[in-house]
Amino acid sequence: MNRQEFEQLLSAWKQGELTADEAFNRWQATSSPTALAKAALVDLDRANRCGYAEVVYGPGKSIEQLLEVFQIQELAGQSSLATRLSTEQLDGLEAMVPGIIINRLARTARRQKVSTAEAPSGQVAILTAGTTDLPVAEEAAETVRWMGGAANLVFDVGVAGPHRLVEKLPQFQEADVVIVVAGMEGALPSVAAGWVRVPVIAVPTSVGYGANFGGVSALLSMLNSCAANVCVVNIDAGFKAGYLAGLIADRRDD
Amino acid sequence: MNRQEFEQLLSAWKQGELTADEAFNRWQATSSPTALAKAALVDLDRANRCGYAEVVYGPGKSIEQLLEVFQIQELAGQSSLATRLSTEQLDGLEAMVPGIIINRLARTARRQKVSTAEAPSGQVAILTAGTTDLPVAEEAAETVRWMGGAANLVFDVGVAGPHRLVEKLPQFQEADVVIVVAGMEGALPSVAAGWVRVPVIAVPTSVGYGANFGGVSALLSMLNSCAANVCVVNIDAGFKAGYLAGLIADRRDD
Amino acid sequence: MNRQEFEQLLSAWKQGELTADEAFNRWQATSSPTALAKAALVDLDRANRCGYAEVVYGPGKSIEQLLEVFQIQELAGQSSLATRLSTEQLDGLEAMVPGIIINRLARTARRQKVSTAEAPSGQVAILTAGTTDLPVAEEAAETVRWMGGAANLVFDVGVAGPHRLVEKLPQFQEADVVIVVAGMEGALPSVAAGWVRVPVIAVPTSVGYGANFGGVSALLSMLNSCAANVCVVNIDAGFKAGYLAGLIADRRDD
Amino acid sequence: MNRQEFEQLLSAWKQGELTADEAFNRWQATSSPTALAKAALVDLDRANRCGYAEVVYGPGKSIEQLLEVFQIQELAGQSSLATRLSTEQLDGLEAMVPGIIINRLARTARRQKVSTAEAPSGQVAILTAGTTDLPVAEEAAETVRWMGGAANLVFDVGVAGPHRLVEKLPQFQEADVVIVVAGMEGALPSVAAGWVRVPVIAVPTSVGYGANFGGVSALLSMLNSCAANVCVVNIDAGFKAGYLAGLIADRRDD
Amino acid sequence: MNRQEFEQLLSAWKQGELTADEAFNRWQATSSPTALAKAALVDLDRANRCGYAEVVYGPGKSIEQLLEVFQIQELAGQSSLATRLSTEQLDGLEAMVPGIIINRLARTARRQKVSTAEAPSGQVAILTAGTTDLPVAEEAAETVRWMGGAANLVFDVGVAGPHRLVEKLPQFQEADVVIVVAGMEGALPSVAAGWVRVPVIAVPTSVGYGANFGGVSALLSMLNSCAANVCVVNIDAGFKAGYLAGLIADRRDD
Amino acid sequence: MNRQEFEQLLSAWKQGELTADEAFNRWQATSSPTALAKAALVDLDRANRCGYAEVVYGPGKSIEQLLEVFQIQELAGQSSLATRLSTEQLDGLEAMVPGIIINRLARTARRQKVSTAEAPSGQVAILTAGTTDLPVAEEAAETVRWMGGAANLVFDVGVAGPHRLVEKLPQFQEADVVIVVAGMEGALPSVAAGWVRVPVIAVPTSVGYGANFGGVSALLSMLNSCAANVCVVNIDAGFKAGYLAGLIADRRDD
Amino acid sequence: MNRQEFEQLLSAWKQGELTADEAFNRWQATSSPTALAKAALVDLDRANRCGYAEVVYGPGKSIEQLLEVFQIQELAGQSSLATRLSTEQLDGLEAMVPGIIINRLARTARRQKVSTAEAPSGQVAILTAGTTDLPVAEEAAETVRWMGGAANLVFDVGVAGPHRLVEKLPQFQEADVVIVVAGMEGALPSVAAGWVRVPVIAVPTSVGYGANFGGVSALLSMLNSCAANVCVVNIDAGFKAGYLAGLIADRRDD
Amino acid sequence: MNRQEFEQLLSAWKQGELTADEAFNRWQATSSPTALAKAALVDLDRANRCGYAEVVYGPGKSIEQLLEVFQIQELAGQSSLATRLSTEQLDGLEAMVPGIIINRLARTARRQKVSTAEAPSGQVAILTAGTTDLPVAEEAAETVRWMGGAANLVFDVGVAGPHRLVEKLPQFQEADVVIVVAGMEGALPSVAAGWVRVPVIAVPTSVGYGANFGGVSALLSMLNSCAANVCVVNIDAGFKAGYLAGLIADRRDD
Repeated sequence: MNRQEFEQLLSAWKQGELTADEAFNRWQATSSPTALAKAALVDLDRANRCGYAEVVYGPGKSIEQLLEVFQIQELAGQSSLATRLSTEQLDGLEAMVPGIIINRLARTARRQKVSTAEAPSGQVAILTAGTTDLPVAEEAAETVRWMGGAANLVFDVGVAGPHRLVEKLPQFQEADVVIVVAGMEGALPSVAAGWVRVPVIAVPTSVGYGANFGGVSALLSMLNSCAANVCVVNIDAGFKAGYLAGLIADRRDD
Repeated sequence: MNRQEFEQLLSAWKQGELTADEAFNRWQATSSPTALAKAALVDLDRANRCGYAEVVYGPGKSIEQLLEVFQIQELAGQSSLATRLSTEQLDGLEAMVPGIIINRLARTARRQKVSTAEAPSGQVAILTAGTTDLPVAEEAAETVRWMGGAANLVFDVGVAGPHRLVEKLPQFQEADVVIVVAGMEGALPSVAAGWVRVPVIAVPTSVGYGANFGGVSALLSMLNSCAANVCVVNIDAGFKAGYLAGLIADRRDD
Repeated sequence: MNRQEFEQLLSAWKQGELTADEAFNRWQATSSPTALAKAALVDLDRANRCGYAEVVYGPGKSIEQLLEVFQIQELAGQSSLATRLSTEQLDGLEAMVPGIIINRLARTARRQKVSTAEAPSGQVAILTAGTTDLPVAEEAAETVRWMGGAANLVFDVGVAGPHRLVEKLPQFQEADVVIVVAGMEGALPSVAAGWVRVPVIAVPTSVGYGANFGGVSALLSMLNSCAANVCVVNIDAGFKAGYLAGLIADRRDD
Repeated sequence: MNRQEFEQLLSAWKQGELTADEAFNRWQATSSPTALAKAALVDLDRANRCGYAEVVYGPGKSIEQLLEVFQIQELAGQSSLATRLSTEQLDGLEAMVPGIIINRLARTARRQKVSTAEAPSGQVAILTAGTTDLPVAEEAAETVRWMGGAANLVFDVGVAGPHRLVEKLPQFQEADVVIVVAGMEGALPSVAAGWVRVPVIAVPTSVGYGANFGGVSALLSMLNSCAANVCVVNIDAGFKAGYLAGLIADRRDD
Repeated sequence: MNRQEFEQLLSAWKQGELTADEAFNRWQATSSPTALAKAALVDLDRANRCGYAEVVYGPGKSIEQLLEVFQIQELAGQSSLATRLSTEQLDGLEAMVPGIIINRLARTARRQKVSTAEAPSGQVAILTAGTTDLPVAEEAAETVRWMGGAANLVFDVGVAGPHRLVEKLPQFQEADVVIVVAGMEGALPSVAAGWVRVPVIAVPTSVGYGANFGGVSALLSMLNSCAANVCVVNIDAGFKAGYLAGLIADRRDD
Repeated sequence: MNRQEFEQLLSAWKQGELTADEAFNRWQATSSPTALAKAALVDLDRANRCGYAEVVYGPGKSIEQLLEVFQIQELAGQSSLATRLSTEQLDGLEAMVPGIIINRLARTARRQKVSTAEAPSGQVAILTAGTTDLPVAEEAAETVRWMGGAANLVFDVGVAGPHRLVEKLPQFQEADVVIVVAGMEGALPSVAAGWVRVPVIAVPTSVGYGANFGGVSALLSMLNSCAANVCVVNIDAGFKAGYLAGLIADRRDD
Repeated sequence: MNRQEFEQLLSAWKQGELTADEAFNRWQATSSPTALAKAALVDLDRANRCGYAEVVYGPGKSIEQLLEVFQIQELAGQSSLATRLSTEQLDGLEAMVPGIIINRLARTARRQKVSTAEAPSGQVAILTAGTTDLPVAEEAAETVRWMGGAANLVFDVGVAGPHRLVEKLPQFQEADVVIVVAGMEGALPSVAAGWVRVPVIAVPTSVGYGANFGGVSALLSMLNSCAANVCVVNIDAGFKAGYLAGLIADRRDD
Repeated sequence: MNRQEFEQLLSAWKQGELTADEAFNRWQATSSPTALAKAALVDLDRANRCGYAEVVYGPGKSIEQLLEVFQIQELAGQSSLATRLSTEQLDGLEAMVPGIIINRLARTARRQKVSTAEAPSGQVAILTAGTTDLPVAEEAAETVRWMGGAANLVFDVGVAGPHRLVEKLPQFQEADVVIVVAGMEGALPSVAAGWVRVPVIAVPTSVGYGANFGGVSALLSMLNSCAANVCVVNIDAGFKAGYLAGLIADRRDD
């Protein structure tokens, strides 16, 4: 099935000539490896196996490829999330996907399933040390929201102003899980973890200069945290932190 | 209060001459900084603030110091856990603390609270890639058990024998959280994470030789995992993985 | 012999005024070091000593220099392969070398010997973890093809979707040698190696972000692979992987 | 099946009371996970899936565990190889396994299948730069021999004595594959590779001092080799180099 | 002047046969390079140029050499400090130098000038994150004391117990300079610096495990501190921190 | 309070309709978190807690945000300093903030409190090894001046011209504290420290090429200085060095 | 003396109104520190102390500054050399300095003293592994020539073509010192050193890709060379290699 | 020729039954590869090709092997030098090789040719920063002496005592080449190089603690030296520095 045939199929489905099941079956039956190659193999079984649809990593993908993945997932009754999008990719998706939610600071685009009647599944608090950590924090927040959770950002509570964190305690002490985003010396997760009794997911950011080595300094701090309830994800990996937080918060409703 | 006075206090309490409250208050009132210095400041408020008592990191502590911490925590109605103990420390604690649970592979000692009537709070699966990863896995398991959770070890399912992991799926696919312990190339967490819909806590071990750099190779693999549900703790940090898993599993019963 | 004289020589040979032997001898006899300097010393003995002609590394070479090497090799009865070419270099070669085979994804150009009557010498399977690994895989494939082998690409079988690799087993289990291209955590070679009984050549790619250090994370994973049949080449070194695979597959016909 | 029962089973089989098939089936049927745990899961399917039996990595294993693996493999009709053995382990195996071949320089022990009627399958040349590289080279050689190949060691041909390598050309230029073992600057693989038309497997060793970083210097040299036919294995990984060489040489007889 | 002659000189001086000036002049006039070589060149001008006598770095020096330096400095009217001493060195000095002050935790020995009538020159607070940081803190404290300052240790106020630091504020907020000693993630200097208006000297320690790389993790944290008033010394460099603190506190009395 | 309301408040205050206290109280009372988010939380308590107002790190901030912080600090009776400003930011501030002091080499902007009647508090000498270290030195100097100290630059006294440093001794030997800025091998702090009896703050710069690793070479030199009176700040951290020097020099007047 | 006065001085000297001595003395007498600051302190004593004039490192200097240094050195009777010049700097110097020798591949500019009657002082051979190493080799050659030595380039003799180096032996075996420039695995210095009895100066270049880390791979190879007669300079440091070679070759004529 | 036969040959030669030529020829004719393997291939041609006999690297060699090499070299009319010898090796050689010169600080043993009538060929100055650098300096000195040069050690002139180096200028300023041995921050070569007009060979040592990384800190300092006349050898590589210095000094007499 080439691009043209695929669009005919989508069109038929949108105009009610085919049910979603019929369209999906036809698509699966006829897809040739070549057609699939254009947008990589979409792992449609992921939602079933892992609980959430496959998330699209944006860099290097054409807008056409992004659209194709979004359409295949819509056809399969799944929601969509794309991360690390460029301004061009964000513009393209915003123009062409009805109901898409764009977050330009987070550089994400998401399309929720239409009939998500379920209430939000848990509370995720997201702390940032400084304003430059905000994009990573927003990427985490968007991921949590896409998974149906509630994300509460508490920003600019870096350790150099010790009173700030204490003032904000009520905003994160009752969360089901806490994400802490910090660059430079990455001390905030250790400090915040001492105030809560839930898991803390630390996200080092590449913010800083000199011997911060693109975030390695913060990464090492977090790995060596003396607090027992701190785990770590990769540098700038807001998506991964959000996804883990969503899973942890979500389990309440299992 | 010096060592001798402290022992008199403990003795009076054990013989019923003092209630726990009376003993605890007396100890708090009279403790001089010097006495405290001997076993560091025991953070007795930790159990209240974080949900679990402070855990003792063994290296460099004398058996006397370890005993003192265990006794203070017992007096305060808290359970105890010590990690990274040497054979001498394990022998000493085993001989002197009634009811202590020693795990010589994990190099841990724990004393549970007497009247823990609560049922285990969740299921934690712990996978290991090879037999040399076992001590770290056991440390994680002991920590989970100390927190009241159930730990199920699934061992030797390294990726070089691909059929092994699939055969063991029933043993970990229903867990509330999965810990994966692996050295060398650290590929197991990525592979295991693809089969579950819960958080995976990856623990790199220092097992290997050559360019594994004491576990850094496995650590980097895990940080760069293409699976979204993988977070990482420090090299050989079985305790931290177990603690996080205990928190995640425990939240079901909140 | 300056550029102009060299072109006259080539022209005379193409118009049949000189046999290849005559042209080659004349060229060798008169070449001054200065002329040679322009396109580096072409190691014409390489084909005899190593079985294949010298391969040209593109960066920093002018189109004129590239053409000169292709012509010298054609004159000496050898095929040609150039790698890491820029768009400008690819355009220039495509315009000026009849019969050249351009692969823009791989950024390679090759000219086969006209009368290669020999059948392909072996089967090389090339696996990729994600779509971003494709250029490196294509570079490997082009190299295999230039050596007379058959290259079969099996793409997007990263470990996060564990069922994908198993589904593709028939496409690589019968190959004479397997190349595995992967970035991020670089786990795929270890996993794939467990399914085959032939050598696996692992190629780390610089794909990823954060603590992947431009491919070092994947490189270390592959070096520390617990599978015994995995060797490694440099980061992004698709050419070298293809060359080694070509040699291994080719030896069947020795 | 505990240790005692296992020995009774072996004894019955050796005295002809049971055929190998009967013994093997009985063992498989009754083995409890606990018994298996003692010597890790022996991957008996490996020989079928990968062509060669599982190889035992010695460190941390008791002599009893090593013996158990050797016996299980013997029972299953497979040969055995153990690497990185200590003097104690070597002594223990030598004393208790009839017909075992011990190489104390290589620190290996192997037991060949009794009825290997097949001729050696290929020629592997193993070059070393200095005498201190010899143990790693011997480990590679033993592995090749265990696989049925012929290993020819050409030693002490480091690049500081340029005439030496050329003098030894006849000893390695006709091999099916060449292993080069070198520490310090690791230049030998690049130089040797220029003289042959077969794959070269480079093994960096931890030999050296100062800024060699336990072999990293040689490893980087080999990864960055300007010769196209050089692949690399981990530092000191003689076994892996031998295994790969065995596979490459063996393929002739497929 | 050989060892014997040197001892005769010292003896004559101690018995009043020579004034200090006479002894010192005689020693300077006759010292041959060989004699000096035994205990390295003692930089007697250091006290004049830098304000404090040269400090002896213990490792690799014989007890005889240490004694010689102490005696030369005593002869020249200077006080002495030696660091990083082994138990043997400490025992030797304790036995042979009257009035020496030994600190076995700090591994230091110091001899103050007899007639130091001056009052202590300033207040130095020294904070430690954990008990294992104590030896480094004590080395700093001994250095401060040797320089005439007052050192106040505030220990075990690591960030995992956030209330502890706040409780101890009165003990360090009025100091003239604060030294913070911490291993693992090295977060304490950043946090403490937010509470004071004086310079903070951060000392990373090699305490920790896994990816702490012998203190590099803490070192990077401290270098990247978001607090403006934090400078850093080398890993475990308690002496250097103490010396700098002594200089800063001392300047009040200039 | 949105941007517009904030400007009305400022305007009312400038026109005398409100006292500073009234304006400040009104602003504090009505500020919504959203408004604050625009320019991060300004830590107005910093001046009280730490002795100096919060310093603004420029990168990533809009001119509007910078202005807002300057205005809030002016309103609160505090001086302002911003660092690492781009040409655009410098131009914007210069145009819009009356009395601002711009240093384009240092890339700083500062606004002093109007009525600073106090005399400069101390002497800070700043040495540079080469001309390329000048911007970092100027950043340090501007910070010292903002704090009320006197900064004396002594430039181009690198160790390759040994007579230069000695010639300049009178310019820095009487300072209260010395800052040394150097790239490449970073030897200057060690050499300069031998000539003074005050603390030396070493600032490594990213100046150099090859194996200098963006300043790491100089950083390591400085951390390993054999001189006892050398502490270190991050690579290129002129601001931090200046701030520490200001604190040390300032303490004379406490 | 400001820029204008300096130009008047130069003009007067060129028109014979002042002798060189008079001009130089006047310049020295009146130069204010501010004027000197513009072009850094020119170390005019360097030629006397070290045998050669100070060499100018180009990056970051304006053409005006470069000219000023060239003029001051001319005035002082010294020759000039500037390295790492941009195209703009090369154009500017070429246009404005009569008799200047520009090497655009080396990115150098030099002005020799007019009356250098001395014969070349020694033979320096410069070997390169590949064409991309040429700019660094040329920088070395220009430096040698500036010092009065003869530089003989032998290019493209990388180890992958082993016969090439042997063919070129006559071109470098009689040199007084050999410079070897190589990137990638950096094996050439070790190999070349085995053929000569003079010092070999190895220059690693940043040429390569993947795990070459901008030349670190070649640097480590060279530092770990098994050949005793190999010393190393920084990555891409052609100037330094040339300078050392010039000194070694020059010593013949002392 | 086995060990016994070899000793008979040596014995015959020593008793005059064979001339050296006869003995040498007989040895060469009959030596089997196995015999040679015992002491590695002695590169007897090295003296001819490189000017000096092969030097023996001691670690891992038995005393028997060392003796064998010394005897072969004596038989071939060559002198001998062995480095990095253990106390046992030094004792063994001292006992069994008449006329051997042992340096226990340098850990070297050398045997000079009997009839070296030549005068010393040049002056090598060797500077050390501290007493702990002495063993490396002595290794360099012994190497220089073995080559016939004169080595003058100037010790303990580290940069922290700036007057010391200047006082010692007469001891090294007239040398033909200067070796500088330093650990910690490795600043001494840069400083010393500014005072001389000859090549400086810098030897980093592993002396130090904390972030010195076993000498890497000093190595980087030396590679990044701002002095043009500094080249570098590996960490602790006293032998290599001595060998290069010997070559440079020796060339005067060519």
